Amino acid sequence: MITVAIEDGSLPPINKRKGRTLLIGVRLVNLQLNNVVCKSISIDGLDATDKAIEIVEKLLPLDVVLLDGISFAGFNIIDAERLWYETGRPVIIVTKKKPSKEDVLSALIKHFEDWKLRWGIIEKIMKISKGIHPVRIRMDKGKPIYIEVVGITIHSAKDILKRLTVWGRTPEPLRVAKIIARGLSSAYFKFRE
Amino acid sequence: MITVAIEDGSLPPINKRKGRTLLIGVRLVNLQLNNVVCKSISIDGLDATDKAIEIVEKLLPLDVVLLDGISFAGFNIIDAERLWYETGRPVIIVTKKKPSKEDVLSALIKHFEDWKLRWGIIEKIMKISKGIHPVRIRMDKGKPIYIEVVGITIHSAKDILKRLTVWGRTPEPLRVAKIIARGLSSAYFKFRE
Repeated sequence: MITVAIEDGSLPPINKRKGRTLLIGVRLVNLQLNNVVCKSISIDGLDATDKAIEIVEKLLPLDVVLLDGISFAGFNIIDAERLWYETGRPVIIVTKKKPSKEDVLSALIKHFEDWKLRWGIIEKIMKISKGIHPVRIRMDKGKPIYIEVVGITIHSAKDILKRLTVWGRTPEPLRVAKIIARGLSSAYFKFRE
Repeated sequence: MITVAIEDGSLPPINKRKGRTLLIGVRLVNLQLNNVVCKSISIDGLDATDKAIEIVEKLLPLDVVLLDGISFAGFNIIDAERLWYETGRPVIIVTKKKPSKEDVLSALIKHFEDWKLRWGIIEKIMKISKGIHPVRIRMDKGKPIYIEVVGITIHSAKDILKRLTVWGRTPEPLRVAKIIARGLSSAYFKFRE
């Protein structure tokens, strides 16, 4: 099982909601880190989908793409359908907290003139995925994670996530991607000064 | 067993032997990635020891430090004795090919006015370590790796390296550090343009 997990870097120290931050892709063969690719995306921009496609293409071959949510570097939405369509690889969107539709929509309306475009992607993915699905990694206890799927069934996605989770409820590729993205973010902003 | 492995990024595309590159520290708890710290060092400079100390201090607590050789970003030598002395953590220097004393010395003399300073560190570590020791990760077959040790016995170092190697003959922390450093290097030079 070869997976690629995509994670963003943190926002700049002073949250001025502009500039760029990192978008990291990590490739794991089963549970073992195998490659890392690093790009930058614009905060609250619209280039995350293109950069995610570039990352996936650079990390081929692979079986499935895991995204840490759908919104990166603020509200730079990854269109998971286009990612799937252009790379041919199924996408599983994972969040630890169930996203609140209402909160996201009202934040978009408040901050973005093009909120309809961004909300359109979010709604489209929710429709393709037939909703946001809770998954319990350990059968009997603990909080669930929440997933959306594109190009794969919920059933297969659950199987994959259970196999890839060895620590808490975060699948290993996303855990590793998060550590690397966090470790590099502070350096990234410092190097750019 | 908590280890930190230190690895440098690649040199710039055009090897002009100046500027800076990355110095990465990764922290593993047994075989699992747990944290990443990223600094920059000057190519052929003399700041690698200071930066390595900063990395180790940021990644405490830990049991042992693994270095991928002694020379980073060209000939920026890490003084493993000072690293050990200032952090209190033993250091194991690992190389896959036995370093040729003569080649290193003649390159230093050719390129550096301060070659005596750099060679002095290399010789000091070799003396502390009582030479460069071959270690066979798999008892019966395959090439050895070569190690030097500071603050730890060869015997203990061998045990640790065997426990940490699951793939070929590169200990897992150094394998992971190498993948991350390589993945970030190209991005690092691009971001700085």
